[in-house]
Amino acid sequence: MRCRKCGENAVIYISQHNIALCEQHFDDFFLDRVRKAIGKYRLFPKNAHILVAVSGGKDSLAIWDVLNRLGYRADGLHIDLGIGEYSMKSRDITESFASEKGYRLIVVDVRDYLEGFTVPLAAKKLRRATCSLCGLVKRYIMNRVGLEEGYDVLVTGHNMDDEAATLLGNIINWQVGYLTRQKPLLEKRHEKFIPKAKPLIYLTEREVAAYAIIRGINYVEEECPNAHGATSLEYKALLNELERKHPGTKHRFYHTFLGLNLSFDGVDTSRDVKLNSCEICGYPTTERVCAMCRVRERLSRLRGE
Amino acid sequence: MRCRKCGENAVIYISQHNIALCEQHFDDFFLDRVRKAIGKYRLFPKNAHILVAVSGGKDSLAIWDVLNRLGYRADGLHIDLGIGEYSMKSRDITESFASEKGYRLIVVDVRDYLEGFTVPLAAKKLRRATCSLCGLVKRYIMNRVGLEEGYDVLVTGHNMDDEAATLLGNIINWQVGYLTRQKPLLEKRHEKFIPKAKPLIYLTEREVAAYAIIRGINYVEEECPNAHGATSLEYKALLNELERKHPGTKHRFYHTFLGLNLSFDGVDTSRDVKLNSCEICGYPTTERVCAMCRVRERLSRLRGE
Repeated sequence: MRCRKCGENAVIYISQHNIALCEQHFDDFFLDRVRKAIGKYRLFPKNAHILVAVSGGKDSLAIWDVLNRLGYRADGLHIDLGIGEYSMKSRDITESFASEKGYRLIVVDVRDYLEGFTVPLAAKKLRRATCSLCGLVKRYIMNRVGLEEGYDVLVTGHNMDDEAATLLGNIINWQVGYLTRQKPLLEKRHEKFIPKAKPLIYLTEREVAAYAIIRGINYVEEECPNAHGATSLEYKALLNELERKHPGTKHRFYHTFLGLNLSFDGVDTSRDVKLNSCEICGYPTTERVCAMCRVRERLSRLRGE
Repeated sequence: MRCRKCGENAVIYISQHNIALCEQHFDDFFLDRVRKAIGKYRLFPKNAHILVAVSGGKDSLAIWDVLNRLGYRADGLHIDLGIGEYSMKSRDITESFASEKGYRLIVVDVRDYLEGFTVPLAAKKLRRATCSLCGLVKRYIMNRVGLEEGYDVLVTGHNMDDEAATLLGNIINWQVGYLTRQKPLLEKRHEKFIPKAKPLIYLTEREVAAYAIIRGINYVEEECPNAHGATSLEYKALLNELERKHPGTKHRFYHTFLGLNLSFDGVDTSRDVKLNSCEICGYPTTERVCAMCRVRERLSRLRGE
């Protein structure tokens, strides 16, 4: 297999574009795809102070690496969720990467936000699904720390496979509200809401993994132990099956959606629900008190028992 | 397994509703679901003169049977497509069913519309995908014969699995135009357009097969030999996989869609493209000459060569 650009030995074949590329030209391709997402969706300006949510997986380490290589000021935020070995390894890998590269990393221990509980323990106490609680807590901390530390934008490592699978799930179950918010950039829509951007939406999981390997990035390969059987993984598998038979399906499905501006029975997906300020913490919520503060209150009562 | 209604031996378990039913109560359930579709979407009035498109498969024979049992005046239309053994068997089974029940059946030989060619031969001559040509020819003949013979509405045997699979395909590929027209009832929108109705949309493939078996209906079990590898079968398989893990998914996906009234970038899916009258045959088309007349012209030239 020869590189389409230079004829050297290719390291990857990209079926969606029907091209093989060598290490150098794959790197060019990868950076280009990130630049394309940033430019097309005006994710952030050149001088933005960026906070990257870094789990220690390939996606978040790759985008952190790329943004710094492209000359952005991009620091990292790692949340230690307290999920046993998995979290210890994730933190360790993230800290090693940061110190090796000389990047600034903020580490937050989830126990500081959950009355001393880890995510799995809090979920057990509250009799709540771990993944849903974990999502809530991470979103809250990312938003709050991003603002408190003065960043302009929060970047996450969602790749095209993630976004296409989420889209499929939201459509299969017609989650109209979620469809509304599924965009490469969530703009500031409350004084305590940091814009959130996804610069990896033009790259597949496989391409991000290849980038991490080629760049010698040591990342956590394991899925979170709680993700086993997650429906998002089912949707990914279904899309991969379609992609295998009809290359380009995933890209077309997701990126055409972004251009459609779907609306439902008069509900324009380009508009959003109204956000209030939480009476306790001041951060945005659609209710009176935000979901995070309600969790903390309940945990604090349970702690006392 | 006991019938939820009467405690007798159940013959079928319906996971979507989590009920088991005996033969009698399954029959009640089945007729009810057909009545529900007819009522909710006002498919046709009680005195309508109905033409059922009958392929000889379980779905079309079942709906033909049900409509007559419910007291409708429903005749059949069978199109002999000339697909070797498969078409001979389909015609034979359809004719036997009609004569056994004493239903009126119109049989059309596709060769009368394709300058003497069968569907596979015409497709070969035209170097065109067989399934797409077959769909075009069937739609044309059903519409034309329905009107010429004075029927009020054409009924097809599309079940919920068919419709959900079509919907998934149209969404994965964002076929906005097709999404627009995916409804239980296509209303008259041109003087030579017969309304088309799908009364089986509340019943799954499995339920229709059970109905046919219980009623002793002899139907063609084979798929059309040309359907092998059809993408619609892929989408069905994907949805069945999701349904197995999350019962009710298929129903929710399809029926929620019908209530959403989706629109795209200002394109309201409740409206339709303008239809002209074909300059040759007078039947509806979005062009000057309809696709069927263009096919016939080309075949007539090829016949002469």
